[in-house]
Amino acid sequence: MAAPALKTLLLLGFCQFWLHGADAICGYESCNKEKPGMLNVHLVAHTHNDPGWLVTVDQYYYRQVQFILDTVIKELEDDPNKRFTYVEMAFFTRWWKQQDKAMKDRVRGLVNQGRLEFTLGGWVMNDEAATHYSAIIDQHKLGFEFLRHNFGLCGRTKIGWQIDPFGHSREQASLTAQFGFDGLFFGRLDSQDKEKRQKTQTMEMVWQGSPQNLGSSSDLFTGVLPNGYDYPSGFHFDVWNIYQQNNNQRFIHDDPSLQDYNVDEMVDKFIVAMKEYQSWYGTNHVIATMGSDFNYVDAHLNLKNIDKLIRHVNARQKSGSKINLLYSTPSCYLKSVHDDNKNWTTKSDDFFPYANRPHTYWSGYFTSRPGQKRYTRQLNGFLQSAKQLATLGHVDNSKGGLDNIQKLAASVALGQHHDAVTGTEKQVVAYDYIQRMSKGWAAAQETVNEAYSNLMSKGKERSVHQVFCDYRNVSLCSVTQLAKNFEVTMFNPLTRAVTYTARVPVDGDQYNVLKEDGHTMVHSDLFTVMAAPSGIRPKGRKPAARELVFNALLPPLGYATYFVRAETLLRWRPNPRNERDERTIRGKYVEVDFDSNGYVRRLTNLVTNVSVPLTQNLFYYKAYAGNNTRPEFQSSGAYIFRPRDNTPVKIKITKWEGIVKGSAVQEARQRFSDWASQVVRVYKDKPYVEFEWTVGPIPAEGGGKEIITRYNIPGWGNKGVFHTDSNGREILQRQLNYRPTWQAKIDEPVAGNYFPVDSHINIKSGDSKYQLTVLVDRAEGGSSLNDGDVELMLHRRLLVDDYFGVGQALNEPGLDGKGLIVRGSHYVLLDTVENAARQFRPLAQEIFLSGQPSFSESQLAPQEYVQKVNTKYSGLLERLPEQVHLLTLEQFLVDGPVASPGGTTPYLVRFEHIYEAKEDARLSVPVTFDIEHLFEGLFFVDATELVLGANAALTDIHRLQWNKRDSSHATPTQMPTALNGRKVTLKPMQIVTLQVNFEVL
Amino acid sequence: MAAPALKTLLLLGFCQFWLHGADAICGYESCNKEKPGMLNVHLVAHTHNDPGWLVTVDQYYYRQVQFILDTVIKELEDDPNKRFTYVEMAFFTRWWKQQDKAMKDRVRGLVNQGRLEFTLGGWVMNDEAATHYSAIIDQHKLGFEFLRHNFGLCGRTKIGWQIDPFGHSREQASLTAQFGFDGLFFGRLDSQDKEKRQKTQTMEMVWQGSPQNLGSSSDLFTGVLPNGYDYPSGFHFDVWNIYQQNNNQRFIHDDPSLQDYNVDEMVDKFIVAMKEYQSWYGTNHVIATMGSDFNYVDAHLNLKNIDKLIRHVNARQKSGSKINLLYSTPSCYLKSVHDDNKNWTTKSDDFFPYANRPHTYWSGYFTSRPGQKRYTRQLNGFLQSAKQLATLGHVDNSKGGLDNIQKLAASVALGQHHDAVTGTEKQVVAYDYIQRMSKGWAAAQETVNEAYSNLMSKGKERSVHQVFCDYRNVSLCSVTQLAKNFEVTMFNPLTRAVTYTARVPVDGDQYNVLKEDGHTMVHSDLFTVMAAPSGIRPKGRKPAARELVFNALLPPLGYATYFVRAETLLRWRPNPRNERDERTIRGKYVEVDFDSNGYVRRLTNLVTNVSVPLTQNLFYYKAYAGNNTRPEFQSSGAYIFRPRDNTPVKIKITKWEGIVKGSAVQEARQRFSDWASQVVRVYKDKPYVEFEWTVGPIPAEGGGKEIITRYNIPGWGNKGVFHTDSNGREILQRQLNYRPTWQAKIDEPVAGNYFPVDSHINIKSGDSKYQLTVLVDRAEGGSSLNDGDVELMLHRRLLVDDYFGVGQALNEPGLDGKGLIVRGSHYVLLDTVENAARQFRPLAQEIFLSGQPSFSESQLAPQEYVQKVNTKYSGLLERLPEQVHLLTLEQFLVDGPVASPGGTTPYLVRFEHIYEAKEDARLSVPVTFDIEHLFEGLFFVDATELVLGANAALTDIHRLQWNKRDSSHATPTQMPTALNGRKVTLKPMQIVTLQVNFEVL
Repeated sequence: MAAPALKTLLLLGFCQFWLHGADAICGYESCNKEKPGMLNVHLVAHTHNDPGWLVTVDQYYYRQVQFILDTVIKELEDDPNKRFTYVEMAFFTRWWKQQDKAMKDRVRGLVNQGRLEFTLGGWVMNDEAATHYSAIIDQHKLGFEFLRHNFGLCGRTKIGWQIDPFGHSREQASLTAQFGFDGLFFGRLDSQDKEKRQKTQTMEMVWQGSPQNLGSSSDLFTGVLPNGYDYPSGFHFDVWNIYQQNNNQRFIHDDPSLQDYNVDEMVDKFIVAMKEYQSWYGTNHVIATMGSDFNYVDAHLNLKNIDKLIRHVNARQKSGSKINLLYSTPSCYLKSVHDDNKNWTTKSDDFFPYANRPHTYWSGYFTSRPGQKRYTRQLNGFLQSAKQLATLGHVDNSKGGLDNIQKLAASVALGQHHDAVTGTEKQVVAYDYIQRMSKGWAAAQETVNEAYSNLMSKGKERSVHQVFCDYRNVSLCSVTQLAKNFEVTMFNPLTRAVTYTARVPVDGDQYNVLKEDGHTMVHSDLFTVMAAPSGIRPKGRKPAARELVFNALLPPLGYATYFVRAETLLRWRPNPRNERDERTIRGKYVEVDFDSNGYVRRLTNLVTNVSVPLTQNLFYYKAYAGNNTRPEFQSSGAYIFRPRDNTPVKIKITKWEGIVKGSAVQEARQRFSDWASQVVRVYKDKPYVEFEWTVGPIPAEGGGKEIITRYNIPGWGNKGVFHTDSNGREILQRQLNYRPTWQAKIDEPVAGNYFPVDSHINIKSGDSKYQLTVLVDRAEGGSSLNDGDVELMLHRRLLVDDYFGVGQALNEPGLDGKGLIVRGSHYVLLDTVENAARQFRPLAQEIFLSGQPSFSESQLAPQEYVQKVNTKYSGLLERLPEQVHLLTLEQFLVDGPVASPGGTTPYLVRFEHIYEAKEDARLSVPVTFDIEHLFEGLFFVDATELVLGANAALTDIHRLQWNKRDSSHATPTQMPTALNGRKVTLKPMQIVTLQVNFEVL
Repeated sequence: MAAPALKTLLLLGFCQFWLHGADAICGYESCNKEKPGMLNVHLVAHTHNDPGWLVTVDQYYYRQVQFILDTVIKELEDDPNKRFTYVEMAFFTRWWKQQDKAMKDRVRGLVNQGRLEFTLGGWVMNDEAATHYSAIIDQHKLGFEFLRHNFGLCGRTKIGWQIDPFGHSREQASLTAQFGFDGLFFGRLDSQDKEKRQKTQTMEMVWQGSPQNLGSSSDLFTGVLPNGYDYPSGFHFDVWNIYQQNNNQRFIHDDPSLQDYNVDEMVDKFIVAMKEYQSWYGTNHVIATMGSDFNYVDAHLNLKNIDKLIRHVNARQKSGSKINLLYSTPSCYLKSVHDDNKNWTTKSDDFFPYANRPHTYWSGYFTSRPGQKRYTRQLNGFLQSAKQLATLGHVDNSKGGLDNIQKLAASVALGQHHDAVTGTEKQVVAYDYIQRMSKGWAAAQETVNEAYSNLMSKGKERSVHQVFCDYRNVSLCSVTQLAKNFEVTMFNPLTRAVTYTARVPVDGDQYNVLKEDGHTMVHSDLFTVMAAPSGIRPKGRKPAARELVFNALLPPLGYATYFVRAETLLRWRPNPRNERDERTIRGKYVEVDFDSNGYVRRLTNLVTNVSVPLTQNLFYYKAYAGNNTRPEFQSSGAYIFRPRDNTPVKIKITKWEGIVKGSAVQEARQRFSDWASQVVRVYKDKPYVEFEWTVGPIPAEGGGKEIITRYNIPGWGNKGVFHTDSNGREILQRQLNYRPTWQAKIDEPVAGNYFPVDSHINIKSGDSKYQLTVLVDRAEGGSSLNDGDVELMLHRRLLVDDYFGVGQALNEPGLDGKGLIVRGSHYVLLDTVENAARQFRPLAQEIFLSGQPSFSESQLAPQEYVQKVNTKYSGLLERLPEQVHLLTLEQFLVDGPVASPGGTTPYLVRFEHIYEAKEDARLSVPVTFDIEHLFEGLFFVDATELVLGANAALTDIHRLQWNKRDSSHATPTQMPTALNGRKVTLKPMQIVTLQVNFEVL
C-alpha cells in the first residue's frame, strides 16, 4: 500500500515540503539496488528527442514530445520503482511552460526522488563535428540554468549522453569533464573500433579530453553503449511498433490462455543478449537502453512490457538464474560500474570520422548545408556581442531586453543540435532553424539598440537607431543603398583593439568616410561588386552595385562610429582600377602571385620572407548514387561522403576578371565557371590571404557533386600528417589511413580521411620549419590527401538520399529553386612554425567574433552628431594579457548559482587562455590578471568560481574518481581552480567561469 | 478539488460500498448535462475493436486492445467529466481476466458512475448478412452474461452499435428491439440513401423490425451516424496519426508561443462541421463519434486533444457562440434526442445491399470464404446440440463440461464477427477462426461424451466412447474406415422425430445395418464416392472409397444408436448400379429429369403434380480487376462483387457420370469441368431435391472468377420479384433495380441486385400459384436477375484486393496451395404457394440443426450392447405444437438473472414460433403449450420470462417511447409477454426466453 498512499499524499499536496526539503534523495542515493553476485542489468527507460529532423522542433513537440512527458509522468507516479531519463531541454522547457503549478510540483517530487532523472541537460544534444566550443558551452548553460531554476540540486545533471551524434570530439569530452560530469555515454563509433573494443572489453575507458593542457582534470569516464541507444534487438517496446507494416518486433505475451504466449522465448532471448553485452564489458553490470527516437508517446505501453520483462527474467532466479533486471538511469549504472573500482584504459584521440560499416563514412555532414553552418556560426558571434553590449549598456529586462537575448540564445542553441548544424535534416526543417535564428537575431538587435541608447547618449540625448542590414552579405542594405549620408557603428567584442575592414553596400559613385571625431577623413575604396548569380539574394531587391571599403580601428570591447558622406565637395580619389594585366596582389605582410591563366602560383610572407609555390584550385567529386542496400552501394548523402572516383574533377578558370587595388585591400577576381568564382584578397594590414569563394548553383546534370578547394605546396613533405582543431580549441594530429587505437582498414581513401575542421587545418613542412594554416569561417570537412595538400569541402549537391532516415536528397533549392549558392572565406597563413600560433589563434577569434557593424541615418552633420552622441566607447578598463580571451560576459537571467549580496547583480564571466601548452614560446605560459577593475560602469563586489556550465560553485563539485590502468593516479575529484581572491591565473587552454556580482553604476 | 479528492478516496478503497451500492448513477442519470438553447455536440469517445481482421483477435489484443483499456481507465479516473464507450466483449473479457481485484473494483467504480459505458455488449459486433439469428442471439447473450456477472445493472447495455457492418438486416433490428434496447446506431448505408436522408433530415427513424409479425414491440429507434463511426474529418486525434507518412491530420496546437498555433482554424472548422451535421438531423443535438479502428492505444493523447477542443469551442460561447461540446455516450445522445419528443419517420425494409459509392456494391462478402461460412454455421448447429445434451445428460462443471461448451460458444460467437463469417479478413486470420472453432468443437465433444455417458449407461455400465469424425465431409473417418463393426449414434436436436439419412465413409465392400434394437436390419446402400480433387482433404490420409447410406428414425430431442456390421453372413444386396443411360431420379415426393447431356431439364412434385421445365447450370462471372482509384475502377474483392461482364460464362458438363440408385436415395452425377462437379439427389422420403456442388480449385488463369449456380424455370413470370430471408427468420420481398425508400440508380445490374441469403430464396410464379424455394446450407449471395431465375453465388477466387483495408486478394489457397475446393448443398422445393411454408420452414430447421452422428467401436455384439447401453433416448416428455421450435436449452453458467429457489438449477430455455403471420393457413396462428413437463430428468420448479438476451427479467425492461410520424401510437415501453403461469403462448415469429429453475432428478 506504500505506493498508492504516497500518491494520495502527493495528490493532496501534503508533501510539498518533504519533496522539496532536505530529504530529497535524488542522485546516486536514489538508485534501485543491485543484487550482489548477479549480472545486474540496468534498464534505462529513455526517449531520444531530436529538436527537429524530419519535422520541426515544434511539430515534434506537438506530435510526440508533449505526450511522452505527459504519460511518463503518470507512469512514474504509479510506481516508485520506475525510473525515466530525460535529456533535451529544448523540449522539456516547452512542456514545462504549459504545466500548472500542481503538475510542476508533482514533477519536482519525481525528480527529487530520482524517479525522473535529467541526463545531459543541455538545450540540445549538440553535434560534435560542426560546432564551435563557445556554442557547446552556451547551449549546455542554457539547459542547466533552466534545470537549476526549476529543480535545484536534483536538477543538476552529471552524465554526458551523446547517444546519437555521428562521431565524437575530444573537446566535447574535455568540456563535459569541465561541466563537472562524472561520465559520458555515447552510441556511435567506427564499427572496426567497436568490434575491437567489444573483444578487448574496452567499451568503457577514461577519455583524456585535454592530455597536453588541462591534464587529468579533463579526464572523463566514457562508455560506449552496447546497442547504440536503442532497445536490445527484439525488445522494441513502443507504440511505434503497432503501426509498422512489416515489423516482427513483438510485445511480451504472458497470458498462457491466449495464443502467441512468448514469455519463455522472450526471456531466453533477453538473457542471451545480456550475456553477450556482458562479454563486451567484463563487469557484473550492463546497461540496456530501453528507448529510441521519440519513443514513450504511450509510456504505459513501454513500461508495461518492461515490467513484464523484469518480472519474468527475475522469476528465473528461483531456478538458479544469476541475472537481475532493475530500472535504472545512466547515473545509477555508472555509479555501479564505478564502485567496482576497476582500472580503466585511456584514450587521448577522438572518434572521427565515424563509419558504421564499410564504405559508409559519416564525413559528408562535416560540410552539408554550408549556408546554414555559416549562419549558425555568425549568429553565435552576434549573440556574444549582444550579451556583452547588454551588460555594458546596463540593459535590464524591463523592456524584455534580456528575454530578447534569451530568444537568440535559444535559437542558436537549437542550431547546435546534431540534426541542425550538421545539415542532416529535411529542407523545411533547415528553413525552420534559419527562421528561428533570424527571429532571434531581430530580437537581439532590439536589445543591442537599447544598449547603444544607453552607451551613446550624452546626457538626455538619445542615440541614433541602429539598423543591422542582415543581408549585407549579398550586398543588400536599404539604409546604405538609399541614404546619401549615414553612420557606421562597429562593435568589437574582443578585449583588444582591432582593425576592422568595413564593407558597405552602396549604389552611389562617391563617398567620403570620416572617423569617429567627425572630421578626420580615412582612406576608402569604392569597389564594383563582382557579379554574382541572381539566386543568391531575396527576390525583388536589387543588390548594391558597389562596395565601400575602409579600415576602422575599433577599441577593445567597444565601438566606434564612422561617418559616410556622399554630400561632400571633396572628391577623395577615383575608384580603384581593375588592372587586367597585373598578376600580383600585395599588402604589408603578404603577397600572392597568379599565373597567366589566373591561378594562384606563389604565396610569400613578406615579413619572414617565406615564399612557397602555392597553387589553389576548385574541384568536384562526383557523388556515388547507389541504392544503399549493401555497403558497396552506399550513396553520398547528407550524412555520408562517398565519391564515385577518388580523384576529383578540376574546375577550370573560365575568366580572369583582373585585379582591383584599393587602399586597404587588393583583390584578384577569378571566374571558374558560371557557377563558381573566387576573390583572392590581401589586406594592407593583415597577415593572411583571404580566398572568398562563391559556389553554386552546383549543376545537377551528371549527378551529385561535392565541391572542394585544394591548396597545394609541391614538395612540402608533410607525409600524410596534418592537424585539425577540435571544436575550435585544441588541435589534433591526423594521419592518412591511420587511427591511433586500432589497425584501421580504410576502404574509402578520400571519405575515410576527412575530418571536421571547425576553425583551422594546417600542414607543416617536412623540415618542421614552416606551417600553412587555413582558417575557415564555418565548419567544413577537410583533409590532406596528397603531399603538400590542404583540401576543404565547400559545398555539396546530392541527388539521392543516403538512407539514414532523412529520406530526402541533400539538394538545397536556393531562393529561386535552381540550387543554393553559397559564399565563404578561407584565411590562409604562411609562416614559420614558431610564429604560427600567435598568428592563427588571434585570427580565429577575429573570424568568429568579428566586428559587428550597424548603420544609422542620423540626419545630423558629423560635428553635431559628435556633440550629441558618444561615437567611441570601450567597456574594458584594463588591458588583459594577450593570451586571455573574454569568452563570456552576460547577466544571469534571474539569479546566479550562488547568492548575491544585496544591491548587486550577478553576472556570468568566462575568461580563457587561448594558447595550448608549448604552442608558442612566449605565450604558452600561465598568466595572471586582476578582475577587480575590468568593466566600465560595473563596480566589482565579489566573485565566485563556478563550474564551466555555470550551474554550481566550483567547490560544490565532487567528481567520481576513476583509476587509470597506466597511471598510479586516479582522476581528481576536485576541479582545478583559477581564482585567487581577485586574481585569476589561467594555464594554457584553461577556462575560468565566474559569478561576478557587480554593483551597476 | 472535487476530482482529486474523489480519486484519493477511490485509491484508498474507501468507496467500494458507495460505488457498488444503491447510489450507482449509471445510465441516463449519469449523463453530462446539455446547455439549453444551444446546439449540443455529444462527443462520443470510443474505439472500434475488430476481434480479428488483419491480424488475429489475440494479436490485436496484445498489440492494441490491452493498452486501450489500460490507458482509458487511467484517463477516466483522472477526470469525472470524461466518458468512454466500450463495445466488444471478446476483447474486454480477455483484459478483465488479466486484472487484479483492485483494478476490477476501480473499473466497476467507473461503470457505476457512467464514466465507462458499455454499449452493444455482444461478444462481437456481428455481421448482419451472413449470420443466422440463433448465432446473433447467442453471441449477444454471451457478452451480456459476462457483463451481468461482473457489473450488474450498470453493465446492462441498451444501445445497438452496429457501426461497421456492411449493410443492416431487419432481423438485427428486430432482435435488438427484443433485447430491450432503446435504440440502434450504425455507420454504413447506401450513399444514395444517405444523401437523401441527410437532405430530408431522416437520418434518424423508427425502424420496424417485424412489421407483419411482432408489430411495434419490434420497433427500434435507429440512427445513422453522421460520419460512419470515425472522427469528424480533420479531427482524428489518435497516436496512429503520428506514424502515418502523408498524414495531414493535426492535433490542436494551442500554445501561441509555438509555431503552428491552430486553435482558431480548428475551432472554426469544427463548428462548421457540427453545423453541417445538425443540418442533417434537425435537432439541437448532434453526435460526433471520436474514435476509429483500434484508436485510444494512448488514450491520453486522444482525450487531451478532445479536452482542448471542448475548451476552445466552448470558450466561443462568451462571444455569443451557440454551440456546446460535451463528453457523452451513445445512450446519453439518444436520451437527449428522445427527450425532444419528436415524431419519427418509419422504415420497414432493410439496408441491403450497401454501396458506398457508384459501382461499389458490398455484395461479394455475402459469399466470400464459403468454406468458413459453412463451418461457422455447422458448429453453431453442433453447439445447440451440445447444450441440449449437456442439459439432458445433467453435465455439470465438475469436469469442465460447461466450460467446454463455453469454449465452443465463444469461438462460434467470435465467428459471427463482421470480419469473420463475412470472409473479409486476411487468410491467416481466417485460419485462426477455423482453428478456434475446431478447438471449441473438440472441447464440446468431450462434454457430449460426458452427457452420453450419463444418458447411455444402464446402471453402473458405462456408455461407449463417441468419436465425431470431424472430416466426415471429405470421406475421412478412421473409426468407420478401419473398424469392421461399429455403432452410429445420431442425436436429433429438434423437438420432433426426423428421418436422418446417415452417410458413413467406409472402405469395406459389404455392411449390414441394424436398428437400435440390435437385430432389425435396415435398408442401406453402399455408394462409390464420386472422385473429388485431391486438394479437398488433409494430406497423407486416404479418403474412404465408399459411402454407406441408410435412413435412421431419430426420436425428438434424443438419439438412436444403429449398428454397422461387416462381419455378417448375410449379404444384403449388391451395391447400387451406376446406370448411365437412365435420365431420371425419383423418390416418393419428387422427380428430376435430365437431358441427354446430363443437364437438369424438369422437376416434378409427385404429390401435387406440379411439374416445371427447370434447368440448372453452373456459371462464372469474370471478376473486374481495377486499381480502385475511382469508382469505375473498383475491383471485385472480399467485400465487393463487381463482375467484368454482367453475363456470366456457362460452365459446361464435360462428363455425365450416370445415375446411382439406392434404397434411400437416388443420385445423378455431373462433372462440369475438372474443377466443378455436382451430385443431384432425390431421397425416398424427402420432398426436396438436393444439389450437392463441389467447386474448386477455381482456375486463376484469365483472372478472378465468381462461380454461381442458376436455376431457371422458363416463363415463370415472377417479374423481377423474389424473396430472401433475413438472418434465417422473416422473409423480405426483393425487386430488381428497386429500393423501397428512395429512387435508386443502380449502376451495377448484377452486383447491385444481390442480396444475402441465409436460409432460403424463393420465386413465385406469375399466377401466384407456385413457389420454387432454394434452401442453402450456409450464407450465400443470391438474386433473380432474369424471369424464372434463382441465382446463388457458390464460391469466389479473386486476384486483386478491393481496397477496403484487408490488403489481400480473396484467393484461398486450399490445403495444397492450388486453390480452395468447396462443397455444399442446395435443397430445392417446388410446391404450391399454400404448401410452401410448411415445407421450407421445417426443412430450414433440419438443415441448420441436422442430426449429429457419432461413432463408437464397442467390440460388443449388438445384443450385448443393447443390454448394457441405452440405444434410444428422447429428452422430450410431451409433444410440442408443430409451429414451436426449441431454440435454446442450456444451463446458466453461474446463475440466472433472477434468483433461483434453493435446490434448483437455473436453465435458459427459448421457444419460438417458426411461422410468419399469414404464411400458412393452418400454422400461422398463435399456439399455447404447457412447459411444466417437458424435459426428461428435469423437474420444473418455476419459470420467469426474460428479455431475449437473457440478462434481465422481462418485467424489469422499460424501453423508451418513440412517436411515429404516421401513427397515433408511440412505441410501447413494455415488452410483450408470452408466459402465463406455466403456459406459453406464442404468436407467429415470437420468441419466448425463460429462466426455468429445475430440480435435477
